[in-house]
Amino acid sequence: MSGSRSPRRRAAALRNTAPRQRSPRPAMALDVLNSHLGYFVRRLQVWIFQDFIRTLGRIHISPAQFSALVVVNANGGLSQSDLATTLGVERARMARLLDRLQERGLVERLRSDADGRRHALEITPRGRLLLARAKTLAAQHESRLMAKLGGERYGVLLNALRDL
Amino acid sequence: MSGSRSPRRRAAALRNTAPRQRSPRPAMALDVLNSHLGYFVRRLQVWIFQDFIRTLGRIHISPAQFSALVVVNANGGLSQSDLATTLGVERARMARLLDRLQERGLVERLRSDADGRRHALEITPRGRLLLARAKTLAAQHESRLMAKLGGERYGVLLNALRDL
Repeated sequence: MSGSRSPRRRAAALRNTAPRQRSPRPAMALDVLNSHLGYFVRRLQVWIFQDFIRTLGRIHISPAQFSALVVVNANGGLSQSDLATTLGVERARMARLLDRLQERGLVERLRSDADGRRHALEITPRGRLLLARAKTLAAQHESRLMAKLGGERYGVLLNALRDL
Repeated sequence: MSGSRSPRRRAAALRNTAPRQRSPRPAMALDVLNSHLGYFVRRLQVWIFQDFIRTLGRIHISPAQFSALVVVNANGGLSQSDLATTLGVERARMARLLDRLQERGLVERLRSDADGRRHALEITPRGRLLLARAKTLAAQHESRLMAKLGGERYGVLLNALRDL
C-alpha cells in the first residue's frame, strides 16, 4: 500500500503518525511548565535580550550600559549605589560597568562634597551624543518587540509590569 | 541655623532637599526606560531567576535542568535537538546540560533505531523521583511569584505570554 503513495502523501502520513519528530514545537507536551509564568517570562526575555544585544551592538553598548546611561543622563549627580539600586544590579557589577563607560569617556565620576567616598555620576557630552543614537536604536528594537507581541498584548504587558 | 537643629530634624531636612539620595527608587527618573517593555521584563526575570535558583538549589537542580527534566519526562523518547528547540536553548549548551543529568543518573540517552546519530532521551526512575520533589519546590516558587505580582496581574501575564 504505502509503496504506491506519492512522496507528498507519504510525507503527510509521516506527519500524522510521528508529529513530535516532524514539528516538535506544537506537539511537545510542556506539562507543568504551561502553568509556570516564570518559564514564559524567560522565553520572552531570551528573545528580547538577543535582539537588544544585536541592536545596541552596532554602537558597542550592552543593554545594562544603555540603562545606566539613560538613568545617569536623567538624574545628574546621582551616586553609584543609587544607580545600582535603581537598576537592580549588584554594586560590584555596576562599578565595573561604570569603569568601562568612564574609560570610553561617556560618564564622569565627580567626587561628592558631602561624602568623600561617594561619587556623583554625570554623563559627558560624548556620552550624550552616543545615548541619542542608542535611544534611536532602542526604539527600533522596541518596535520589533511590539510587532512580535502584537500591539494589544504589548500594551497589556507594559501596563501590568510598569506598576510593579 | 542648621547647627542648632537636632540630628533627627537635620535628617528630615536632608530628605526634603535631597530626596534622590535618601529614597532612590521612587524619586529616580527612568526616562525612556518607562516605555520599554524589555526593561520591565528583565527586572521581573531577575527576580524570578534568583528565587527559582535559590528554591531548586536545595536539590542541586538549575532552572534549565528543571525544564529539561519536565519535558523529557512528559515526552519520552524525544531527541536532544527537539528538546533544545522546544526550550529555546542552544544545542551545545543542551548537550552539556544533559551530560550533567546523565552523570547523576537522572536521564538516559538511548540510541535511536531510526538514525544512529540520534539519541532518544528517557528519564530514569531516580530522575522521576527527583523531578517530583522539584515540581513541589517549583510550585512553591510559583506561589511566591503570584504573591509578589498579585493574583490578577499574574493571570493577565500568564494569559498574555502563554499563547505566544
